[in-house]
Amino acid sequence: MSNIENKHNANLNRDLFAISLDPAGNTSLQAQLLEALRAIIVTSQNLTGARLPASRILAAELSISRTTVQVVYDQMISEGYLVTRRGSGTYVAHDITHLRSPTPQARPARPVLKPWQPFQTGLPDQSLLPYQTWARQLERAWRTPEPDLLMRPDPLGWYPLREAIADHLAAWRNLHCDPEQVFITSGAWEALEGIFCGLVGSGKTVAVEDPCWPKTHDILRVTGCKIHAVRIDAEGLDAGKIPDDVSAVIVTPSRHYPTGLNLPLSRRTALLDWAKRTGALVIEDDYDSEFRYRGQPLPSLSGLDGRANTIYLGSFSKLVSPALRIGYLVVPIHLLDQIRRHLGRVGPRASLIPQPALATFMQSGEFAIHLRRMRRTYARRQSHLLDALQPVSDLLDLQPDPSGMHLCLSLKPQLARRVSDQEICRRAKKIGLHVGALSDHCVLPDKMQGLLLGYAAFDEQALSEAADRFANLLRSV
Amino acid sequence: MSNIENKHNANLNRDLFAISLDPAGNTSLQAQLLEALRAIIVTSQNLTGARLPASRILAAELSISRTTVQVVYDQMISEGYLVTRRGSGTYVAHDITHLRSPTPQARPARPVLKPWQPFQTGLPDQSLLPYQTWARQLERAWRTPEPDLLMRPDPLGWYPLREAIADHLAAWRNLHCDPEQVFITSGAWEALEGIFCGLVGSGKTVAVEDPCWPKTHDILRVTGCKIHAVRIDAEGLDAGKIPDDVSAVIVTPSRHYPTGLNLPLSRRTALLDWAKRTGALVIEDDYDSEFRYRGQPLPSLSGLDGRANTIYLGSFSKLVSPALRIGYLVVPIHLLDQIRRHLGRVGPRASLIPQPALATFMQSGEFAIHLRRMRRTYARRQSHLLDALQPVSDLLDLQPDPSGMHLCLSLKPQLARRVSDQEICRRAKKIGLHVGALSDHCVLPDKMQGLLLGYAAFDEQALSEAADRFANLLRSV
Repeated sequence: MSNIENKHNANLNRDLFAISLDPAGNTSLQAQLLEALRAIIVTSQNLTGARLPASRILAAELSISRTTVQVVYDQMISEGYLVTRRGSGTYVAHDITHLRSPTPQARPARPVLKPWQPFQTGLPDQSLLPYQTWARQLERAWRTPEPDLLMRPDPLGWYPLREAIADHLAAWRNLHCDPEQVFITSGAWEALEGIFCGLVGSGKTVAVEDPCWPKTHDILRVTGCKIHAVRIDAEGLDAGKIPDDVSAVIVTPSRHYPTGLNLPLSRRTALLDWAKRTGALVIEDDYDSEFRYRGQPLPSLSGLDGRANTIYLGSFSKLVSPALRIGYLVVPIHLLDQIRRHLGRVGPRASLIPQPALATFMQSGEFAIHLRRMRRTYARRQSHLLDALQPVSDLLDLQPDPSGMHLCLSLKPQLARRVSDQEICRRAKKIGLHVGALSDHCVLPDKMQGLLLGYAAFDEQALSEAADRFANLLRSV
Repeated sequence: MSNIENKHNANLNRDLFAISLDPAGNTSLQAQLLEALRAIIVTSQNLTGARLPASRILAAELSISRTTVQVVYDQMISEGYLVTRRGSGTYVAHDITHLRSPTPQARPARPVLKPWQPFQTGLPDQSLLPYQTWARQLERAWRTPEPDLLMRPDPLGWYPLREAIADHLAAWRNLHCDPEQVFITSGAWEALEGIFCGLVGSGKTVAVEDPCWPKTHDILRVTGCKIHAVRIDAEGLDAGKIPDDVSAVIVTPSRHYPTGLNLPLSRRTALLDWAKRTGALVIEDDYDSEFRYRGQPLPSLSGLDGRANTIYLGSFSKLVSPALRIGYLVVPIHLLDQIRRHLGRVGPRASLIPQPALATFMQSGEFAIHLRRMRRTYARRQSHLLDALQPVSDLLDLQPDPSGMHLCLSLKPQLARRVSDQEICRRAKKIGLHVGALSDHCVLPDKMQGLLLGYAAFDEQALSEAADRFANLLRSV
């Protein structure tokens, strides 16, 4: 049987098995079935040549007698809707156009997704994930699922995944916590929304770094919190500049977003002291610090705090794939009840489907191997990009970055005098290069200037080619 | 090799491959590796007997010389951390307790999920899903994923799934729409939140049925909308009772939640006329009408409207599994840009992992076969439960329901005089029976009384046993 015939058969079965008949209806079961079957054949485009189920099977599916089905089939054969081939069954006739209602419009073509263009930020190179392993682990988890997978999904997440995350954080981030403190989310938006709605509360003020991830502002607005932006200096966020009446502060200590700055120990201690004194929550967004190329990965702020006042935010979007929609929170023990209540109320968002496979991926050590491999790859790509940009070293400050997935490059005076970062980005976009402007991440006056160039998702050839075009552009402005 | 040894090896590799060394550090690479390896062995509980990777492999992983690794291994053998077995490699020593820091606490036991108890509502019988098929489709989708699966996930959802949903709605719900109008969400909460934030707007008033799904009130509060509850009558929601100044109304026309009432055609037409006149949005929550046991499934309200003003909400939580966290919206064409902007801003929540498998499940016809099978099963369970409750037919109004996954039973005067629905539920809970109170779904005064008994997730034996206990309880109050 051809694929097309297979598909037509499946379409027909889908529609037939959806028929409901009413034994107490105004017309006989036979009349109801006749009408329903006629409607299916007349309105569907993709049934030509499809084979009808044996009368015995359709009768069982619809809980009616086999005779009723046979009478209806015979009637439709005589009307020309169906044909019969001796010894082989009953089929939808090929030429029923004269029986059809006017043709519905053809379905539009599928939209084409825009490919990821250099130097877009925020995506890992998803082509390097070991999909064979990943697909096998998905298959194993769901072929004969553990009984707990068939219960109402726990809004807190799949427990073995929470365990695997606790192990990972201990090994990679010096963050020692109990799996009970780890909560699975569908990503940073849900996690922050949960913290603002469930722990901080509408109307309260939250301090953010300036510059920062622009969506933080959106989420704070949606949850009704007030925003207090604090401009970072050469060392990052200074706790001394945060007013005492804020209820929480969001910080990216291991790698400031988007500048890449690392918050020094003295500043970390000062921040934790400030939080202890004011009772404010510290929300540590640790979005990609596993990708550290030189030196030990820095311990997390939460690990330093003993997590008394610090909530840790992690995500698998950059470490594995954004297709997962899986992130997590690590919450201090004294806040567990409050966040559990909130998550119980809003219910689970993160799909349970990938969670057992991800837990196995982590516990088997494949995850660490993948991280290490990506770290080597990204380190190579970063230095490749820096080399490729050498021709414009008089225009851009080409500092290597010890970590991350993008470079944040300052404009040298010779370039900064002539043009703004936003203007460069606008012109780059016209030639298919997506460069980010640092100033787009600021809300305070006297916005910082800089260019964000993602390199993680592009191979060396693509980076060379894009860097050449970008250098030409910079020379021409 | 035993499973335990395998696990220990994986743990060790995970930790080793996570080490970062700094060639520009204050100490030599050798000293750094020695310290890191010592720390791993001393702090980890689960490495006893684990085999270390060959020096060649670890050297390649850490980008250092093989000699450095070999010197460190030798040093640690002499210190007693490692042992070597001739011709077989280097292992973590068995007796290193004297070298360890104080033992960290053992991990607590995994919490046990509470099994689903009769007569809890809202869950399908997940044990009846064809997991072999489902697991195979997951594996196929991700073994060699289509290029589009490796791009940034589309916040609107995986296009072939949107197509499959459009086909399903045409066949089952008489709702004809373009796949562009279908948006994938992580479920009803996200869908409603998206409508209230993205289309209705904070501060506006939304009308809800009384009784209704209690979380609707939570979502409206979180999004800053005002609530106007309208008590339903024997025919359901009466559009004449909705004030003209509300911006939207949420309605469950095919099967009122939780009473099961079907909104008659005259009321539907009146509601659409009202919406046309006032310009208000109608949000049709169609959560389980595929499970209709007698008569044709009723066409959706959105299908009747031509969707001019009606947004349709669907979900796979009850039709397939709540583990998916996949639901959807169907939005009228004139609102597409607005909802796209909103979804683009908040980003995707629904995991991409199950979406291609679900699309295949639907397009292959397996989904329709599953629905039909569940429909037969649930119909059988409902009549079984009604039979089992016959002994208390003097206390409860045992009307069969032509659709749904739970019964909403009125209290007969003899019972209603003695006790409230909430009191019955409290007492039932004490004997492990989860019965819902209709009054808990009301906010207006003079709350309606009734009992909600879910039957879909329980087999006949469980239903008989639970019905017996419940009948005894009712006799005793």
